[in-house]
Amino acid sequence: MNTPPDIVRVAYVDLVVTDLQRARDWWVDLIGFHVQDEAPGVLYLRGYEEFVHHSVVLREGPIAACARIGFRVRTDDCLDRAEKFFRDRGCAVQRVAAGATTGLGEAVRAVDPLGFTLEFVHQMERVEPLVQRYDLRRGASINRLDHVNVATPSIDDSYEVYTDLGFGLSETIEDTADGTLYATWMFRKQTVHDMAFTMGSGPMLHHVAFAVPESHNILGLADVLGAHDQAHWIERGPGRHGVSNAFYLYLRDPDGHRIEIYTTDYFTGDPDHEPIRWDVHDERRRDFWANPIVPTWYSGSVPVLDLDGNPTPIVEQAAKETTAAKKVTVGADGLGTVVDDD
Amino acid sequence: MNTPPDIVRVAYVDLVVTDLQRARDWWVDLIGFHVQDEAPGVLYLRGYEEFVHHSVVLREGPIAACARIGFRVRTDDCLDRAEKFFRDRGCAVQRVAAGATTGLGEAVRAVDPLGFTLEFVHQMERVEPLVQRYDLRRGASINRLDHVNVATPSIDDSYEVYTDLGFGLSETIEDTADGTLYATWMFRKQTVHDMAFTMGSGPMLHHVAFAVPESHNILGLADVLGAHDQAHWIERGPGRHGVSNAFYLYLRDPDGHRIEIYTTDYFTGDPDHEPIRWDVHDERRRDFWANPIVPTWYSGSVPVLDLDGNPTPIVEQAAKETTAAKKVTVGADGLGTVVDDD
Amino acid sequence: MNTPPDIVRVAYVDLVVTDLQRARDWWVDLIGFHVQDEAPGVLYLRGYEEFVHHSVVLREGPIAACARIGFRVRTDDCLDRAEKFFRDRGCAVQRVAAGATTGLGEAVRAVDPLGFTLEFVHQMERVEPLVQRYDLRRGASINRLDHVNVATPSIDDSYEVYTDLGFGLSETIEDTADGTLYATWMFRKQTVHDMAFTMGSGPMLHHVAFAVPESHNILGLADVLGAHDQAHWIERGPGRHGVSNAFYLYLRDPDGHRIEIYTTDYFTGDPDHEPIRWDVHDERRRDFWANPIVPTWYSGSVPVLDLDGNPTPIVEQAAKETTAAKKVTVGADGLGTVVDDD
Amino acid sequence: MNTPPDIVRVAYVDLVVTDLQRARDWWVDLIGFHVQDEAPGVLYLRGYEEFVHHSVVLREGPIAACARIGFRVRTDDCLDRAEKFFRDRGCAVQRVAAGATTGLGEAVRAVDPLGFTLEFVHQMERVEPLVQRYDLRRGASINRLDHVNVATPSIDDSYEVYTDLGFGLSETIEDTADGTLYATWMFRKQTVHDMAFTMGSGPMLHHVAFAVPESHNILGLADVLGAHDQAHWIERGPGRHGVSNAFYLYLRDPDGHRIEIYTTDYFTGDPDHEPIRWDVHDERRRDFWANPIVPTWYSGSVPVLDLDGNPTPIVEQAAKETTAAKKVTVGADGLGTVVDDD
Repeated sequence: MNTPPDIVRVAYVDLVVTDLQRARDWWVDLIGFHVQDEAPGVLYLRGYEEFVHHSVVLREGPIAACARIGFRVRTDDCLDRAEKFFRDRGCAVQRVAAGATTGLGEAVRAVDPLGFTLEFVHQMERVEPLVQRYDLRRGASINRLDHVNVATPSIDDSYEVYTDLGFGLSETIEDTADGTLYATWMFRKQTVHDMAFTMGSGPMLHHVAFAVPESHNILGLADVLGAHDQAHWIERGPGRHGVSNAFYLYLRDPDGHRIEIYTTDYFTGDPDHEPIRWDVHDERRRDFWANPIVPTWYSGSVPVLDLDGNPTPIVEQAAKETTAAKKVTVGADGLGTVVDDD
Repeated sequence: MNTPPDIVRVAYVDLVVTDLQRARDWWVDLIGFHVQDEAPGVLYLRGYEEFVHHSVVLREGPIAACARIGFRVRTDDCLDRAEKFFRDRGCAVQRVAAGATTGLGEAVRAVDPLGFTLEFVHQMERVEPLVQRYDLRRGASINRLDHVNVATPSIDDSYEVYTDLGFGLSETIEDTADGTLYATWMFRKQTVHDMAFTMGSGPMLHHVAFAVPESHNILGLADVLGAHDQAHWIERGPGRHGVSNAFYLYLRDPDGHRIEIYTTDYFTGDPDHEPIRWDVHDERRRDFWANPIVPTWYSGSVPVLDLDGNPTPIVEQAAKETTAAKKVTVGADGLGTVVDDD
Repeated sequence: MNTPPDIVRVAYVDLVVTDLQRARDWWVDLIGFHVQDEAPGVLYLRGYEEFVHHSVVLREGPIAACARIGFRVRTDDCLDRAEKFFRDRGCAVQRVAAGATTGLGEAVRAVDPLGFTLEFVHQMERVEPLVQRYDLRRGASINRLDHVNVATPSIDDSYEVYTDLGFGLSETIEDTADGTLYATWMFRKQTVHDMAFTMGSGPMLHHVAFAVPESHNILGLADVLGAHDQAHWIERGPGRHGVSNAFYLYLRDPDGHRIEIYTTDYFTGDPDHEPIRWDVHDERRRDFWANPIVPTWYSGSVPVLDLDGNPTPIVEQAAKETTAAKKVTVGADGLGTVVDDD
Repeated sequence: MNTPPDIVRVAYVDLVVTDLQRARDWWVDLIGFHVQDEAPGVLYLRGYEEFVHHSVVLREGPIAACARIGFRVRTDDCLDRAEKFFRDRGCAVQRVAAGATTGLGEAVRAVDPLGFTLEFVHQMERVEPLVQRYDLRRGASINRLDHVNVATPSIDDSYEVYTDLGFGLSETIEDTADGTLYATWMFRKQTVHDMAFTMGSGPMLHHVAFAVPESHNILGLADVLGAHDQAHWIERGPGRHGVSNAFYLYLRDPDGHRIEIYTTDYFTGDPDHEPIRWDVHDERRRDFWANPIVPTWYSGSVPVLDLDGNPTPIVEQAAKETTAAKKVTVGADGLGTVVDDD
């Protein structure tokens, strides 16, 4: 039998940036991440409601990329289960010793069938709680890593593989007419998602999302960016997603890594939790307030690295999600009409 | 000598809508204005922190238009001063008896040199305070009319006329290189503006702005619109203006009237208050968070009516304000670069 | 072996009120719960982010009381495990058929060793999602039942029993000098708690807590209560707890049931989550802003009913938690000094 | 004829503190005021939406006191009018040269008939706007001085004198049965107040209030105080006043100076603005959420200095405002009842 590892949650991302000092200025000084640890060429960051060593590793390297996506597993023997799970599917797997990454115990790395490099770990170094250090919080007042959103042309495969890995399905975007699946939100912890899969050229990292306390923290970050004349890093938002009900702001870091600042999703932990299925023609799915999606939204993603640290070749996407948003326009007569700009 | 009337503030707008029931559904049920009074073909609305009969009159008529913009003056004899002020400038002027509009005393109507029909009134019917009726507030929790924004091709003239009328200047958009003035924010009450003048084909009404308590009230309205699947009425925002520091959301009503839901500007009442001058090339002036301006922004305005209720011919605008916003894009290599899409 | 039931979360409370119409006015019209269902003498309520039939049952009866606290279990066979768990401890246990309570499947009721009547159920009727029905949300914009806080003189026993039931420990109040445990926060779902146990005469229900989206929703509820001249229902707050980091407001309903309106706690789902231990002399534990605890706080609780519906006799509490808060006072000389009013 | 000076607004307070470094730590590092200027023994502070040199002067001296309350007047000749106004009433008056206080022009100081030392100034040094320096804002994100609240046993006199000075009346607390006036809120700028007069032993300074953008800034300050374990400086709140509709938090600084952090009042600039009159028995007047008033509220004020810098003798108050708040309590039977603890 093939029991998957008992994944607790997505726990960290390991990202390559091309200029670590520039990345530090952005992630720490501007956005407000807490620096837990650093060493030449590498920076370990976390949010104020994370009790473990890091949720983001920034490493200097030749191209912007996602080195791996880390999952915390419930027990040490989940490492064996993870190894077997991927070996059985013919995936490349690697075992790394404790300390290979500062703060982490022994780990299993595997390339999933979609091409994403995952890492499974049980032991994570516990660090000082900062939940109520309101004196230290600044920028977006980052609480914790919430989820990772990836682009893949094989959206059906992703659903199958991650269901096998024990993920639940909270929401989808699909074409109810022809059954095409465009995106899935899948979870292990009791929130809307740990992983989201979006139809697109891939494997690529679309964005990493961080939870903050309340919507005013998101507006406050935008104001700080404006005050620094750095608002060009804002790519989209603030706005409300139909999917997940999240209030969001999307930023691109100087390397093009997209991060979402995010608040308010909902509890998904009930054993019979039913997915909410959005039709691809319902404009509220992407933006509940009908704001148009920015052109870079479907293109700006970063490549992922394989187990040897090389960029994984990118496969073009299969189908295209429409992106129109209905808006009011006013004719020459000064009267408003509702038009559909599809 | 020509002493201008002592204007307290912009106090109301008198708007023509083409379907009053449809307008009532929108302004009252969706946005949350308080209905103070109604009669066949006309509706009198106010916010929860207004102590007078109305700040919005909606009248049914053949085309969407702004019939007049109302100013409250400090004393009864300001009516004579208003009459003289405009007659001396060769403007059409009309005196109307108390009660010509329900809730208003005797009034002077005048077409200003830019073509806008203004009304000056001292007596306004006082009504029950609703400031703390949190049980009644809904939608956007409208507090009060804050300002009126109009489009005119004669931006220099507007500055001159309203300065003569005793308005102060709080902010501008101008080309610091060649001295062209693109927009002015002018005030009588101690806020950033009662009237804003924007370069554009005119005379036209660009928008009417209403103050609400806090930014979450604006997000809350957007959510209510989304919940009703009516978010297509959102034209722009939410966002922060550089000019005025306002947190905003722009809506178009079913007739194309644009309203701004608005919070947090600043005190301008000091006798030597200095204007803040924004260069037309500073992208933060329009949007402090660098979000692009929607295409309808510079076109969607409604005509104004003359003293006989006929639409005033529209003169094309003289110069164009650039609207570019810098954004991060990501190249084929996955790396982000900052580009200027001017 | 004695495997405890796999409890997902505390899912509902079944409360007795002495006047159902009065309770409906309060819970529904004033506080804003959603009425899912009703029948003569009974009302089924839920929050806007609950996908099951109810989280609160209000039944009319002779005295205000807590009939039972409901837990959702992961699988049907957890009912047997629950039954065995409590029988093995000599507790009264009762099996009830599906539909004994509208919306619930077959259930096991048991009186725990502290005297609280619990109910375990797997099947709960799924109902229409209302997460984004911002048009319906009102009052406090209740999202979901978060936790139940009970008073017991046997705080050590409660910790032992609920640890055996599989609960994790997130926070405590204790005397670090003599080891006395005054209160524990224990969880099954990945939040700070499903159940809190506070030293006090018991078994009694101290309060039931409901999560809302953001702090402004809590302030908004207080404003609505003030507007209705019903603010006397506010017992304590708004404030921030040291324990759990919650922003809170406590209300007493017309029967004396205490409810907490609550937002922002943190993720506790990691396998090695460490409890935060507050010393009983640290005034921030109860109120992070040093506001004094109201006198009714340690007395106002309601009795619990046994399996036959009779009130359970109350045992006096063993030890007393001190309640002092440091405050600044000003002497006759007009100078401020910091005093400790213990 | 005796034309009073045309007062624009209350503009600054000049306070004596007994330890300037300690005061700096508190006002600047903890609460977040902007330091505009400093010199040995004196500190000049302002908020982020003030365009003039200071709104608070802190001077080191032997006892905590209010040296004077500063008003900005519209024109230079208002200084003569101020001088005449107070000389005609037999008050001590002093003319001081420009620069007597850094940042201020020539000024007139006068002791009003209640014993408060006032200062009138027209010229104030303009300084760099910081409205949108969200990168600098911290602590409470102080916008501007809003009002000064003083205690006097002669509440009727205060109303008469300040009415003569041209102040409007926005709200009162009075006994509608016997006509006793307990408190008045009086304004020059278009907000609820510049000065509030509260029945009490006096002349004493009750508190100085500072406006901040939104309610979350007030909660945020309380959190920062808690994080620093400095929440004992919080005396009262957060809460909503019935009077003025303000959302408030009261702090005492290390010298016992009480400051209010304050948001959301309403526009009072209309020429016929009517006062709102609260009966002294309406518990919502002081606290709209029915929270009890803290015992220090009616005692903790600081003395004021005369023109020579000596403390002004304090006269006991004449009448007492009741302070009861209705609360829910629970009887021995566990049932709640609403009681009035007057």
